[in-house]
Amino acid sequence: MTLPKAAIERIIRGAGAERVSSEAVEELRDAVEDLAEEIASDSAKFADYADRNTVKKEDIGMAVQH
Amino acid sequence: MTLPKAAIERIIRGAGAERVSSEAVEELRDAVEDLAEEIASDSAKFADYADRNTVKKEDIGMAVQH
Repeated sequence: MTLPKAAIERIIRGAGAERVSSEAVEELRDAVEDLAEEIASDSAKFADYADRNTVKKEDIGMAVQH
Repeated sequence: MTLPKAAIERIIRGAGAERVSSEAVEELRDAVEDLAEEIASDSAKFADYADRNTVKKEDIGMAVQH
């Protein structure tokens, strides 16, 4: 668990929610972390494919698109 | 900008990246925030559709799936 609940709750409130349950915040945090891990994992593979040890912006962009 | 860069960088390193550029961290943070805002917006619509003022866990689940 890495992403702060306060930041996630702010995003939900920013989307126009009047009230937000604590479980909803946790559910979105989990979903967002899963998505981030998936993109990160693909990005690392793309960097490796390009013979780099450094994950760069373009690897993230490629992973988001594919 | 709400999600902390340190948390995003940890996720990329956790995916096996040896090195990570600062721009890559920002790119993933932006992508993840966009996804979170999209899910949050759909969740608020689902709560509204169910005649609730409170965004609940099930609204997030529905939004992630649809």
